[in-house]
Amino acid sequence: MFNNFFYGNPVKIFFGKGVVERIGDKTSEYGKNVLLVTGRESVKKIGVYSEVIESLKKNSLKIFELSGVKPSPGLEKCKEGSDICKKNNIEVVIGLGGGSVLDTAKTIAFAALYAGDLWDFFEKKREVKKALPIISVMTVAATGSEYNNITVIKNEKINKKESIWNENLFPKVSFLDPQLTFSVPLKYTAFGAVDIISHVLERYITNRSTTLLQLRFKESLMTTVMENVETVLKNPSNYEARASLMWSSSLACSQMFELGNENIDIPAHTIDIELGGFYDVPHGANLAVLIPAFMMCNIEKHKSNIERFSRNVLKVGEKEKTSCLAESGIKRFRLWLKKIGCSITLKDLGYKKEDFGKIAKRVISNPYWNYDEETVVNILEIFYED
Amino acid sequence: MFNNFFYGNPVKIFFGKGVVERIGDKTSEYGKNVLLVTGRESVKKIGVYSEVIESLKKNSLKIFELSGVKPSPGLEKCKEGSDICKKNNIEVVIGLGGGSVLDTAKTIAFAALYAGDLWDFFEKKREVKKALPIISVMTVAATGSEYNNITVIKNEKINKKESIWNENLFPKVSFLDPQLTFSVPLKYTAFGAVDIISHVLERYITNRSTTLLQLRFKESLMTTVMENVETVLKNPSNYEARASLMWSSSLACSQMFELGNENIDIPAHTIDIELGGFYDVPHGANLAVLIPAFMMCNIEKHKSNIERFSRNVLKVGEKEKTSCLAESGIKRFRLWLKKIGCSITLKDLGYKKEDFGKIAKRVISNPYWNYDEETVVNILEIFYED
Repeated sequence: MFNNFFYGNPVKIFFGKGVVERIGDKTSEYGKNVLLVTGRESVKKIGVYSEVIESLKKNSLKIFELSGVKPSPGLEKCKEGSDICKKNNIEVVIGLGGGSVLDTAKTIAFAALYAGDLWDFFEKKREVKKALPIISVMTVAATGSEYNNITVIKNEKINKKESIWNENLFPKVSFLDPQLTFSVPLKYTAFGAVDIISHVLERYITNRSTTLLQLRFKESLMTTVMENVETVLKNPSNYEARASLMWSSSLACSQMFELGNENIDIPAHTIDIELGGFYDVPHGANLAVLIPAFMMCNIEKHKSNIERFSRNVLKVGEKEKTSCLAESGIKRFRLWLKKIGCSITLKDLGYKKEDFGKIAKRVISNPYWNYDEETVVNILEIFYED
Repeated sequence: MFNNFFYGNPVKIFFGKGVVERIGDKTSEYGKNVLLVTGRESVKKIGVYSEVIESLKKNSLKIFELSGVKPSPGLEKCKEGSDICKKNNIEVVIGLGGGSVLDTAKTIAFAALYAGDLWDFFEKKREVKKALPIISVMTVAATGSEYNNITVIKNEKINKKESIWNENLFPKVSFLDPQLTFSVPLKYTAFGAVDIISHVLERYITNRSTTLLQLRFKESLMTTVMENVETVLKNPSNYEARASLMWSSSLACSQMFELGNENIDIPAHTIDIELGGFYDVPHGANLAVLIPAFMMCNIEKHKSNIERFSRNVLKVGEKEKTSCLAESGIKRFRLWLKKIGCSITLKDLGYKKEDFGKIAKRVISNPYWNYDEETVVNILEIFYED
């Protein structure tokens, strides 16, 4: 069914080889004092760090820095960044790195304009009403943060991740040069691809109203990601394939293909967020088990779209006739995930069965999801081992 | 090939049943004095006119009006509108109607802020640097003007149409209620569908670099339009189908699927613009002949994508094997155009062969296209009659 929707995505995208050299010029439209947020040393190794600094300096911008953002970015780092902003009259926040860096930059951008407890926003006690302009330079193809209005931050003190969706969190400008992703390790390239596919699949596998147009767009995107990650794994410097992954990553999170269909029926990301409190496993690695597990546990409920996915994306039944299309699809999807280097059981990822009860309790404490403990445990157990 | 691109589309879309009631509230964010631009009486008949007036009044907005915009909108009407703006300190321009109304509203929006000769902008002697905020309420699914930064206006004195592409011409907000298109005559609904498909095909039928992702998105969109126009022709008040056409129309012009591939190899719209100087035939009706004609005249040059189109959109070769896939596709496309009620020869549309030389001269005088006179005449002649 074609539900009503609102759509507005104001992000300006500069995509392609060498686009980062324009960052100084574009940033100067928003202010003079800049906070540059980065993660680990890799941005220095691949040269983009010095390119950004050079471009900012050429435009006479005053640069302050916050480095060392880690995966599953924490609240303390955001506070550190917002303190720098407050002290130095920062006017623009730049995130240079992956999703964690950008989530940190987004959070700093609104934290800088508030006194009081930052966690209040994540607990939805306060609403973000304004933020400093945010600019991003992405170095991975995975989270899509460069094209959305979302941030996910971990409160280290209570060991809990929370997200905020707010229109002030759209970057003003995002620079996407696929060459910056050439050196992403193959394992993380694969995890990134799984993340992209998950963003699409979480709203594709549904029995709620959706439209054929949206399903087709999503199939186009998933097929493209599957083909191109295979190419990249063979040749990590294949520009076309890296570019396809990078742009697919942005589009998958642009909300362009979810209009009127915002509900998520297989909330794998939500379980992953809670897993993050227990194990230090990359996001995409968890999803490679969780997404098929969700599908298998909901195979009857969502049969029709799982069958579509099997036929149109995984090409099950092209050569052979199959009476159990949905099951064959899930099986083939898991084989493909294994082929690109993902573990496809939670045991392989180091999870322990005895923790599943505790994890499930955390998951069901999230008021957004209507899952009971038993269902969550079932999802965790179904592909615990092969 | 994955070319570099810039993409930024700031339009905020409110889509669905009843969204127009929000226009007063949203317009008031941009100003108090409003110029409401409309076309013929149909907006009054379908009730949306009074709904807009009511919503604007409820928000205490001061309404000025310009009505009577006609198809192939003219420069004089734009001047009339900009005079109203200048005299009455208009702060927002609303276009309520189809593409012609919106093109007029867009042109008024920048004309209101300039003295001097308005045609200078269309002749590219001056650049649009600012414009009043533009808001649109669309009543047809065809031109996609509600989601792009383009206006096409006819200078009646010299009988010539010109277009402007400029970032100030994006509407701030567009309201799209598919119910408003229920009463569009079936003939014009079909022409609208042809217009949408043409916007996509003009850049799909190419041998330049493009990406598989873009081709797939376009195939998804064209397939959806073809299916849904057939449904609408059977049941004009089918909401789902009308909604699919309306949103496809917007997306086809959002430039989202052309990134890095802005060049047009089969510029059917350009020839249509010149035909407009000779005959008073609806845009979509001309395109239903011109698009297949362009394909047929370029069948060798663009064979690979015409074959893709034949296979993936027109489903040629699904049941039968065909050695001349491209030709079969063009043939099937023309049969489909005929099926939805379009004339598929220029003779049927009332064109006279003896004018083709003159038309061709006008087309090749456009410096953007590298066509010679003979080629244009060939395109006009190939489907002159069956």
